[in-house]
Amino acid sequence: MSEYIEHDPHRISVGLVQKRIVTFAEPPHAMLLESGRSLGPITIAYETYGEMNAAKSNVVLVLHALTGDAHVAGYYNEDDPKPGWWDIMVGPGKGIDTNRYFVVCSNIIGSCQGSTGPCSLNPLTGIPFGFNFPVVTIGDMVNAQKMLMDHLGIRQILAVVGGSLGGMQVLEWCLRYPHMVRSAIPLATTTRHSALAIAFNEVARQAIMADPNWNNGNYYDGRKPNVGLAVARMIGHITYLSDEAMRLKFGRRLQEKQDFSFDFSGDFQVESYLRYQGAKFVERFDANSFLYITKAADYFDIENQYGEGSAVKAFSRARAKFLVVSFTSDWLYPTYQSKAMIQAMKKNGLDASFCEIEAECGHDAFLLPNERLSALIRGFLENVEREQAA
Amino acid sequence: MSEYIEHDPHRISVGLVQKRIVTFAEPPHAMLLESGRSLGPITIAYETYGEMNAAKSNVVLVLHALTGDAHVAGYYNEDDPKPGWWDIMVGPGKGIDTNRYFVVCSNIIGSCQGSTGPCSLNPLTGIPFGFNFPVVTIGDMVNAQKMLMDHLGIRQILAVVGGSLGGMQVLEWCLRYPHMVRSAIPLATTTRHSALAIAFNEVARQAIMADPNWNNGNYYDGRKPNVGLAVARMIGHITYLSDEAMRLKFGRRLQEKQDFSFDFSGDFQVESYLRYQGAKFVERFDANSFLYITKAADYFDIENQYGEGSAVKAFSRARAKFLVVSFTSDWLYPTYQSKAMIQAMKKNGLDASFCEIEAECGHDAFLLPNERLSALIRGFLENVEREQAA
Repeated sequence: MSEYIEHDPHRISVGLVQKRIVTFAEPPHAMLLESGRSLGPITIAYETYGEMNAAKSNVVLVLHALTGDAHVAGYYNEDDPKPGWWDIMVGPGKGIDTNRYFVVCSNIIGSCQGSTGPCSLNPLTGIPFGFNFPVVTIGDMVNAQKMLMDHLGIRQILAVVGGSLGGMQVLEWCLRYPHMVRSAIPLATTTRHSALAIAFNEVARQAIMADPNWNNGNYYDGRKPNVGLAVARMIGHITYLSDEAMRLKFGRRLQEKQDFSFDFSGDFQVESYLRYQGAKFVERFDANSFLYITKAADYFDIENQYGEGSAVKAFSRARAKFLVVSFTSDWLYPTYQSKAMIQAMKKNGLDASFCEIEAECGHDAFLLPNERLSALIRGFLENVEREQAA
Repeated sequence: MSEYIEHDPHRISVGLVQKRIVTFAEPPHAMLLESGRSLGPITIAYETYGEMNAAKSNVVLVLHALTGDAHVAGYYNEDDPKPGWWDIMVGPGKGIDTNRYFVVCSNIIGSCQGSTGPCSLNPLTGIPFGFNFPVVTIGDMVNAQKMLMDHLGIRQILAVVGGSLGGMQVLEWCLRYPHMVRSAIPLATTTRHSALAIAFNEVARQAIMADPNWNNGNYYDGRKPNVGLAVARMIGHITYLSDEAMRLKFGRRLQEKQDFSFDFSGDFQVESYLRYQGAKFVERFDANSFLYITKAADYFDIENQYGEGSAVKAFSRARAKFLVVSFTSDWLYPTYQSKAMIQAMKKNGLDASFCEIEAECGHDAFLLPNERLSALIRGFLENVEREQAA
């Protein structure tokens, strides 16, 4: 294992990486979506890290969450101020070791980070799709990833890994293409979006659609619904933290003040934090993508889709070895949901392990440095490799 | 005890009631607020139920939550479709028995249900205060209630009772006017607003202020910020329920549909519920009041105000006998906050009881019919009366 120096991320990074783009489903071969509508051509933005071995047996597919992108690790250039979103996990000697594995990550369709989504040009009209973009599902996202795998000549995936919405894609992969997936690591996720999670998404969507600049999704040539999108992001950020996380991170500390302002300028650090997160987010994300991807999450229900309402029946299709991970303070996808998932796997005789990691930082925990999580994933992947070789 | 028939609320109601109004702090005797600003004249809307005894020793002061009003129980007329907001608890033979107690409830200042608030006319300008209304605190609300008590000739209160923001007022009463309060029942509340609770309030405020119709608080002669207020209310409703409550109440059930719509019209019952609650709320509540009252809640921190950061020191001022009640599924003011409160009371040698009630309906539990809660309150009040007589 290569040298691991926590304090110098550049040194242990996978280094300079490049975003690639590939286009599928060119007319007249549009992709058929789960809604019955079709979509094409479809552009997929993706990145790869490490080298594929000759047997093509060392592929790890990383799947990103709601607002993520293909840029998992490394830097785009020498001046790039920060690495990809999971650089703490993916790199030489890290939890997902790029000295051993060929890591692939692609931007989901519906998003706005290079893959086809509502801000892409509609080939029929020459203007962005906006609200004419078809509703896509987690299954559609996975189907698009399957086209990318075909393009890369990958027929077997050593491991599919992802947290939150990425974890939903992990589960979808295991049930949609069971014979392609050797192992799977769904982190901080669920088999079906709960009423609470739907409720938060719906309020966030309403906040966006309440912004007059949203204009029924047609805003690409004018002012953007940044105010509504910022509120939506603030709601999201509350769900990514937790009561405990917020108490430890902010408590009732005031922002640069000794006393209450007795006005509405924002007294507390937690208020400033949320406002900052909202303001920062609108610079990098598209409001329509937020609507579409949250809708895909709300529709996600593998119990219903593959098991007529039964998780046990749904997982009877799966062939993968599983490592399911939840976090104690995650109240968006609480541990009980991961436990139900693991029980359904075990009832099918699947080789499935479960770990609940003690973490005070809420749902966001899967994205934060955690030596236990890194060690768990590293060990699991080594076992899968060993079993594959045997 | 009078006949108690759950199925016919009219029969066991306190009957027809009347809203009254009284005005204090007439110029030049404006009320001094905690902010240092002054406010006056102040109108207080209030209602009473039952009869005050000759010794004026049977007064129960009920304090309402964020969007409540003075109308606790009974009906305004024969055709009134529904009773006051806590009719299940206040009435003949009920938990707070109007055959025994003289119950008073007043609308808090800052609100919009008859007491002075941002939608009231500013006497200096002749137009509604709007955002020129001064920020008021829970302490200011209690000071206004104290003026009402003086007006009614009440010098001793048998019990102050309230949940959520009403519970904050209960605690404030016990520390601000300790010698007036014989007993206190804070329900589903906290000694200081947590970072999580502040975060939810701040996002709700941002949703209101994002609505262009809010117009910096000046909307009383034009279109109201109903879209923003509806989103704020939807956020509130999520916090009043709980993961479990939503799962039981809605699950993933669809609204009048067999299949997904694959559009954004709202598929799930929980979405329709939230939209309905938002739409209904804007008919009865003022957006500026929502801003001011949530701000008062966020400022609430008796540990800091009365105890230099120590709950134990804060409660050293209290003289009341306490019944503290929390609900298992309340994640806005979770049980651990009530437990900390009761410990601080006990460390001061106060006569304080605590009960955590098993409830799956979240924070809202204190407002819903619960025989255990009614029996607890009834028994506690009888004990207080007995001790007072002894």
